[in-house]
Amino acid sequence: MAASATATPHYVRIAESLMRQMQRGVLRTGERAPSLRQLSLQERVSVTTALQSYMWLENRGYLEARPRSGFFVRQPFANEIPEPQFEPGGVREGPPGMDEIFEDVFRTANDPTCIGFGAGCASPELLPARRLNLNLKRIVHRDPLHSSRYDFPPGAEQLRRQIARRVSHIESGASPGDIVVTDGALESVGLGLRAAAKPGDAVAVESPTYFGVLANITAAGMKIVEIPTHPQEGMDLNALESAIRKHRIKACVTMPNCHNPLGYVLPDDHKRALADLAGRANVAVIEDDVYGDLAAGAVRPRTVKSFDNKGLVILCSSFSKTLPPGYRVGWIMAGRFRAEVERLKFVTTVASNSLAQRVVADFLESGGYDRHVKRLRNSIALQVGSVRRAIARYFPDGTRISRPAGGLLLWVEMPPGTDSLKLYRAALAERITILPGPVFCCGNRYRNYVRINCCHTWSEVYERALVKLGRLAGDCRTHSG
Amino acid sequence: MAASATATPHYVRIAESLMRQMQRGVLRTGERAPSLRQLSLQERVSVTTALQSYMWLENRGYLEARPRSGFFVRQPFANEIPEPQFEPGGVREGPPGMDEIFEDVFRTANDPTCIGFGAGCASPELLPARRLNLNLKRIVHRDPLHSSRYDFPPGAEQLRRQIARRVSHIESGASPGDIVVTDGALESVGLGLRAAAKPGDAVAVESPTYFGVLANITAAGMKIVEIPTHPQEGMDLNALESAIRKHRIKACVTMPNCHNPLGYVLPDDHKRALADLAGRANVAVIEDDVYGDLAAGAVRPRTVKSFDNKGLVILCSSFSKTLPPGYRVGWIMAGRFRAEVERLKFVTTVASNSLAQRVVADFLESGGYDRHVKRLRNSIALQVGSVRRAIARYFPDGTRISRPAGGLLLWVEMPPGTDSLKLYRAALAERITILPGPVFCCGNRYRNYVRINCCHTWSEVYERALVKLGRLAGDCRTHSG
Repeated sequence: MAASATATPHYVRIAESLMRQMQRGVLRTGERAPSLRQLSLQERVSVTTALQSYMWLENRGYLEARPRSGFFVRQPFANEIPEPQFEPGGVREGPPGMDEIFEDVFRTANDPTCIGFGAGCASPELLPARRLNLNLKRIVHRDPLHSSRYDFPPGAEQLRRQIARRVSHIESGASPGDIVVTDGALESVGLGLRAAAKPGDAVAVESPTYFGVLANITAAGMKIVEIPTHPQEGMDLNALESAIRKHRIKACVTMPNCHNPLGYVLPDDHKRALADLAGRANVAVIEDDVYGDLAAGAVRPRTVKSFDNKGLVILCSSFSKTLPPGYRVGWIMAGRFRAEVERLKFVTTVASNSLAQRVVADFLESGGYDRHVKRLRNSIALQVGSVRRAIARYFPDGTRISRPAGGLLLWVEMPPGTDSLKLYRAALAERITILPGPVFCCGNRYRNYVRINCCHTWSEVYERALVKLGRLAGDCRTHSG
Repeated sequence: MAASATATPHYVRIAESLMRQMQRGVLRTGERAPSLRQLSLQERVSVTTALQSYMWLENRGYLEARPRSGFFVRQPFANEIPEPQFEPGGVREGPPGMDEIFEDVFRTANDPTCIGFGAGCASPELLPARRLNLNLKRIVHRDPLHSSRYDFPPGAEQLRRQIARRVSHIESGASPGDIVVTDGALESVGLGLRAAAKPGDAVAVESPTYFGVLANITAAGMKIVEIPTHPQEGMDLNALESAIRKHRIKACVTMPNCHNPLGYVLPDDHKRALADLAGRANVAVIEDDVYGDLAAGAVRPRTVKSFDNKGLVILCSSFSKTLPPGYRVGWIMAGRFRAEVERLKFVTTVASNSLAQRVVADFLESGGYDRHVKRLRNSIALQVGSVRRAIARYFPDGTRISRPAGGLLLWVEMPPGTDSLKLYRAALAERITILPGPVFCCGNRYRNYVRINCCHTWSEVYERALVKLGRLAGDCRTHSG
């Protein structure tokens, strides 16, 4: 791992020291924080650095900026709203539960008359459409024949070089030859699965997990084995280890950074332990890092792949969460499965869109991507905070909300007895989309959970929609609740 | 079927009448055909129509245009070079033979130092890159947020409407709701396969057939059953019928229009018989029509789908053979499997590139596509003719060449004992790419066959390359030959 990635920036260290002062009561809730000028003098840093520290704290809910008055200490969200509980549940094998809801999900996803907290990505106004359009026009002007050949696997060299450079911050020594371009992270996961396992094989997944992954495993003819997953600490590795033996698991799909739907970033020692277990048991790990660039904090979290010394971890990602998703540019770094993944890409979708690969590559090359992602992370953190506060205020008492370490998803545990499928249908009737808990597992669990996507720039429209959702959630309680 | 599709244009009827005169010896080889003025007076048509008739005949090798002298009757190719023979071979089950060659194929396909007769599509200069670039710039200008959402399945409505309009010329009553947009014809075939069959199921294919289809079936965890296929008359339907019973076949992949690699267009009664057999046996037919728009002749050939009244035929196609292939726009019309195909598209590649869908849709909407395809067909027919003549001249005596009814591929049967794998490697050493016969089947058949892609506008470079190939083919004979 590069030294630059481990060093904590100065403004984060200042912010963390202020946070500790709050925890010790040196700075108390409601109190005005030192002015930017004061802080810059105290810490011998520029006013800009001082502002960065305050913004870092604001994004995490420790400070509140009041126009023309300065920054005030607020009680962090963490203390206000409890997080969802761990539901051990045990290891289970089975088909995904809620396949039939899929069609609804993608039919309503782009319906402009719906307020979408369901399937999602960042709001269009947060994405650098104009910058990419400039790149696009320049490419078309310079090379009118941009699309006249298939960009056969592994895909455009310029793009793979840029991806390898960024991946090098996490794993040492990634080269363009390690990367295969795909049409998105889910295609990457599917390619990884089929390279590492065969139809009929068992695949371990977190529970709950992204419904696309569950459906993808089933589409590959493989069996799903759910591993109990803690809302902050991730998959139960002991349960995984015994499941590997008992169910003869050939691969494990995991999302250690900004888990969908739980939101956690797995600590490094857990990541290392997972890589080690995979090595011992000779099981492939398909690591979905699609939200990794949206992890909060100044340091990009590491991947399980960065602890892998046997080539067993298949790292999957895409630009669909940070750039306009219609571009469909993803990638896979498949370790020992590289040749097979390349072959499978060729025999299933032949090649990815040529122009999109070049537009994204140019944006990465210019450094524009990194600047954009930094801004995007902060905007999304604010949105997540706003939605979180609104849910806490408008949902029934006893509601618990995940405290995501990045990404744009909230996992909401409503009081026992609340029927999220009923809520899903009632909300859809009001033109509001959410995703009910049972789609994130096999069988019919997480009945009182919903996933809320905080993709929209906060406005009264969304506040009103959450008021309505909260009221509907109260109405959707069964007697047992 | 629409009346417009069945009516033969006037110029084709005139051309066909001239062709019959040649066959009867009324017009003899070497003789000058009537002048355009004469023909237009005789037939009471415009000079333009007369010219169209002559071009139709020229494209098929019946006439030769000599500058400033007019059109002369020539011996059609058909009489000069024999076609490959039917090799019954029997029904066989097995994995594809030559998987290991794939990586070479796509590694060398875009190598600018190679002369490519291998993997291919039309030459860049034949494709309407500039027209599409104008559309592209206009879309980006009018809607800067063109890619800011996923175009979830079934894909962009504008594109599906245009595809349905064109498909309506073949099948009556296709609606935009019947179409699902994909990333290309091979993705379509894979989606159709997985919608209609399960891992472990047996799938019938033509032998020889496109290697991508063979690999795609294997990647889906299904078994391949090869059906003997006549170089002009297609799959042996009796053999298919008994194989359906014996091997419990669940689906059949077929390419009735401009077969890859054989080049035939299946007569309508064969298409109808295949649709009927599928209906009787309740077997899905996955019809790959990717070269259909490149079929020779003024009337677009029908599809098996147009004879399907049970929703069992899954029609697959793309624009990769007629538009720049880097756009990656394909489609599928899946009959009774539509909902499942839509779901599978969502859970495997989520959505297709948004901008590419709109660029292609605009081009279709403007009518530009239809004008372009007409020109492209003629250009390709000329190229195929040139390559065919060169092979006949430079390859060893006894070589047989397919007489494709469209598309840009030639299937070349070299004298018995010629080793096409040896030839493939020797050619690659000389920076010439071809595809050896064994990749088109299971096991190790078609050893003395190669597929030649006539994608390039004819020039001395290609003539020299074929001289070299012919010489190498002579060197690659084993003793048994």
